[in-house]
Amino acid sequence: MCDACGCDLKPAHSHDSKVVEVHQSLLAANTAMAAKNRKHFDTMGAVVINMISSPGSGKTTLLEKTIETLGGDIRIGVIEGDIETDRDAERIRAKGVPVVQLTTGGACHLDAAQIHKGIHLLEKEKGGTEIDLLFIENVGNLVCPATFDLGEHHRMVLISVPEGPDKPAKYPKAFHSSQLFVITKIDILPYFDFPVEEATAEALQLNPELQVMALSATSGEGFEQWLDYLRKLCN
Amino acid sequence: MCDACGCDLKPAHSHDSKVVEVHQSLLAANTAMAAKNRKHFDTMGAVVINMISSPGSGKTTLLEKTIETLGGDIRIGVIEGDIETDRDAERIRAKGVPVVQLTTGGACHLDAAQIHKGIHLLEKEKGGTEIDLLFIENVGNLVCPATFDLGEHHRMVLISVPEGPDKPAKYPKAFHSSQLFVITKIDILPYFDFPVEEATAEALQLNPELQVMALSATSGEGFEQWLDYLRKLCN
Repeated sequence: MCDACGCDLKPAHSHDSKVVEVHQSLLAANTAMAAKNRKHFDTMGAVVINMISSPGSGKTTLLEKTIETLGGDIRIGVIEGDIETDRDAERIRAKGVPVVQLTTGGACHLDAAQIHKGIHLLEKEKGGTEIDLLFIENVGNLVCPATFDLGEHHRMVLISVPEGPDKPAKYPKAFHSSQLFVITKIDILPYFDFPVEEATAEALQLNPELQVMALSATSGEGFEQWLDYLRKLCN
Repeated sequence: MCDACGCDLKPAHSHDSKVVEVHQSLLAANTAMAAKNRKHFDTMGAVVINMISSPGSGKTTLLEKTIETLGGDIRIGVIEGDIETDRDAERIRAKGVPVVQLTTGGACHLDAAQIHKGIHLLEKEKGGTEIDLLFIENVGNLVCPATFDLGEHHRMVLISVPEGPDKPAKYPKAFHSSQLFVITKIDILPYFDFPVEEATAEALQLNPELQVMALSATSGEGFEQWLDYLRKLCN
């Protein structure tokens, strides 16, 4: 277990039965709370997507553009997760949709209990009880967030072109547990060695059920496919 | 307490004394092992740098270029940390220096016990006992690795231009605990909104002792400053 955050097991100290026991009980509590959240989301009538990626892969920019283009048709809300700062929430708020910022104060992932709190805070925001599509932007971290069910209906993993195409193989859990893999920032493909087909094939090898798409929130390339995906989820 | 359903609003585990106790004991064990590693490094006569960054910030590319340009003067060795795959070690091995790949099997950071194992593996590699400068390339994660002393002498944090300039404020611990902050991939500054001065100022606000430099391992811009830094460390 990562003693910083309670996530995955197996390094040098995995043989410590006390650690394993605490870890298992934390995860069980998280799973129970996630089930509660999922019921809450269903009652709200909101489809919920958990976004997992490295720092700087373009999650917030993708959300800004999505709200701009889809916000008239689908009522969008956002729960932002960060270790520190409310900068991402400020960016989303400027787009006129209900948003809540959760700061984890050091922890490297959101957990279901934090999201539970986030739901209640969101319901106090203007429009926060009338959301069709709720995005949870997880802490920028390709590792630990993959371990924690937040009660979402769908999970997506994002890799930006500058990060390189070897990330699925290096960070398999996020790919195993997601339904959607989005390659972002494809407008800068000419400046990087990023074979999209290779990254796609690696991801599909890990999880053949994955839907894969490549887009740029800056140039708009590939964006229609993303919007269609969201429209279908909300129908 | 949540008024709606009576559950605790804090993250599930932050107040659990058993969890805190286990974490403290793991961290204490890690610190003790790190001190042991540091002594081992001193006996070897090696200066050790722990590299912390997001996935895809260019750590391995920086190492490749560093070995190419400095490898004739300074004997370099590398311990690679990844969750899965030995791809980074293969890239370093191709440069002709001793290297060991540690895979954490799910864990999001290296710990001192893994590094202890890594040292012994390194000593079995050709040239592994005659290292002046040892790089530890940590798992791609800007969060948890900052919590774990590995016994290194110096710690550096890297942010690549595509990740955006807001990372110091969002991931403060890595900046608090490092001596060096390197901004990578500056050859692509023209394509991104990345004010180097702003990112530098934010980092220095968190840690006024930080040395900051900006470079590109591709174009070579700013590289001489990096090599000078390493030469001084090894003198």
